[in-house]
Order: sequence, then C-alpha cells, then structure tokens
Amino acid sequence: MTISPAPKALAADAAPISTVPLDKAYRLINHGPVVMVSASHGGVHNVMSVAWACALDFNPPRVTVVIDKGAYTRQLVEHSGRFVLQVPCAQQAALVMAVGGRSRHTHEDKLEQLGVQLFSPEGSTAPLVRGCVAWLECRLIPEPHNQQTYDLFIGEVQAAWADARVFRSGHWEFDTAPPALHTIHYVAGQQFYRTGEGFRP
Amino acid sequence: MTISPAPKALAADAAPISTVPLDKAYRLINHGPVVMVSASHGGVHNVMSVAWACALDFNPPRVTVVIDKGAYTRQLVEHSGRFVLQVPCAQQAALVMAVGGRSRHTHEDKLEQLGVQLFSPEGSTAPLVRGCVAWLECRLIPEPHNQQTYDLFIGEVQAAWADARVFRSGHWEFDTAPPALHTIHYVAGQQFYRTGEGFRP
Repeated sequence: MTISPAPKALAADAAPISTVPLDKAYRLINHGPVVMVSASHGGVHNVMSVAWACALDFNPPRVTVVIDKGAYTRQLVEHSGRFVLQVPCAQQAALVMAVGGRSRHTHEDKLEQLGVQLFSPEGSTAPLVRGCVAWLECRLIPEPHNQQTYDLFIGEVQAAWADARVFRSGHWEFDTAPPALHTIHYVAGQQFYRTGEGFRP
Repeated sequence: MTISPAPKALAADAAPISTVPLDKAYRLINHGPVVMVSASHGGVHNVMSVAWACALDFNPPRVTVVIDKGAYTRQLVEHSGRFVLQVPCAQQAALVMAVGGRSRHTHEDKLEQLGVQLFSPEGSTAPLVRGCVAWLECRLIPEPHNQQTYDLFIGEVQAAWADARVFRSGHWEFDTAPPALHTIHYVAGQQFYRTGEGFRP
C-alpha cells in the first residue's frame, strides 16, 4: 500500500496563516462555500470535496457534513474520530473537482497524483490541505443513527485557522483580497460561483 | 391574537414561477445561500431567516435546517410537520435581517409590520414568501434526538419552485439575471455577499 506523505511543517514561504478564535470559527463557512474534508488514520491520509457542510452551533462550535458511504475518507473519519473541514479558493476549483472525482479506493496515490500537499500548523497534527484559505479541525461527535441513515456527521471544532490575506480579525476581506483567493460555491456539473460583492443592507 | 393573512393565490403581475423537478431541487440551495424558513399551523403563519440550511440527499431530496428553540417558527414546524425553505435575493437583504431580528413571540403582527406577503402556488397550500427566487416545500422527518440536542431538523422536499428569470431548466442563470435577483450569502453582523461570477474550471 502506498503511504501518503505525512503532513509537513509549514514552509517559510507559505501563506500567512493565523489562528481563528473558536467563537468566530463559524464565520469561515457561514456563507456556504464548497469545502474539502480531510482525515488521517494509521498513517493513511485522504481528502475529498463536499458541498454539503454547514455550521450547526456557535458555542460549542459545531458543524455538520455529509459523507457518502462510498467515500474512502469516511472510514478515516470513523476510525480516527477526527476530520478537518477546509475552504478552498477560486484558484483551486480544478483541484476541488479532481479531488471529488477520484477515489482513493481505486487510486491509492490520489493525493500525489493530484499534487495535494498536507501540512499541520504548530501545535496540531491534523492534515490540512495547503492552498486553502480556512481550516476547521473537528472532533467527531459519534451519532451512529445519523451516520448510517443519512450519511450525516457532526463535529465539534477544536481549532481553526485562516489565510490572513483573506480573513482577518474575525472577518472575510474579499473586497481587498486577490480574486484568486476568494471562496467559491458549487452547484452541479462543474458550475462554480465566486463569493461576490460584499454589502450591508 | 392577530391572525396573519392566509397565503393568497399568485397575482397575475407576479414573477414567473416555474416548477423545479425534484431531482434538481438540491441545486436551489447547493451553493449555500442564506434562506428563510416559513411554516403554518392552525391558521397562524411565520417566517424566520436562517443561514444554517443545507442539502442532505439527492434522492429522495432531503435538507437539514437549524431552528433555535426560541424561534416561534419552530413550534409551527413541529406541530404541522411541514416547512418551506426559500431563497431570498439581493433586493430582500434588509428584509432578511428584519425577519431574523424580530420574533413573533413579541411581535404578533411581525409579518404585516415587515410587509411579508405569503402566497401558495397552484396545487399547494404551503406558505411561500413572495419576492424570493426559489422555494422548497418540505415534510418534516421527525428526529426528536436531533431536534432536541442540536436544534437540527431534517425535511424531505415534496415540491420545489423557482423564479424563471433566475433559475431555468435546472440551472441558475445569474450571469444574465438582474443583480437584484441574485442570491446572497450571510456571514455575521449584517455582512452579506452576493453570489458572484460563474465559472467552470
């Protein structure tokens, strides 16, 4: 079996990543972007793309995510009791499609093939996908009925981070950030929409 | 007690509303817009705003929605076993804030105060909010543990409609529709973002 490369420490030339306070973590996904889910167990890592993730509570910060029974990542989540929700940006849209269209069940070296790089921020061993703009490290709250009947998983956010070029002081800063770093929303059939113009009514 | 006006038949001068096939209904919320939840029971109607709604399944089409214990609408959902998720558009952003900020518990005539108009499309008695651009009529799938522990409600979509100026033949048409009719995404503190530029990677 191919062993995926373990998450590395963040390179010095990487994006400026800052910690997001737990009471602001919901804001990272509150606007409904597409996400990627990653998980590790026994030295094996995987990443999948998911449109169906949502905030569930502010305090404690909780999230829901739908993970199909056919997804390789699902067994890593169930065995490790942990997962990461991360928010990709516009320049990663092709990667989102590729990660969602290829399973590790049939492509053991999927992450290497697709050039997915994992890293762990200081103080964590969670497998975060490099190039995303926000990350929520979650502990699975086991709910066997939801998982079996609805493929619905509930997680409690343990730590959160964001790319400080796009999310600072508890706020997304899309109006000043490069469009390539904007978050994206997925409909179907490869149709994405960028997060657009900000406004207050 | 003030009785809200019952939903009316659609006026002849209203937006062109078309039926959305059930297998395409998930696309109405797949991109993570803010929604409004409406429900009726015993001649009483109410509407609330919700950022935490999400697709759960394609077939049968199912959704999740988080409804706080303090929300008046919650008891209407629990007693009637039905609710509507609807997708407001940019020109309704102030209404989304107002509907979310005022409870029927303290403002019995909230809907009249805010000018919320309800209607039912032909063949349905569901209370749909006029001016939105998509509607999903749902039957509650009772899950007492989820409802009590997480304020999490699961619904199965029974019928769906969309404003044909913005959603046609199973696709959002934001690139040609007026910006006022674009869907919107909510973060916090009155901060909204429009659904932006469409693209395929």
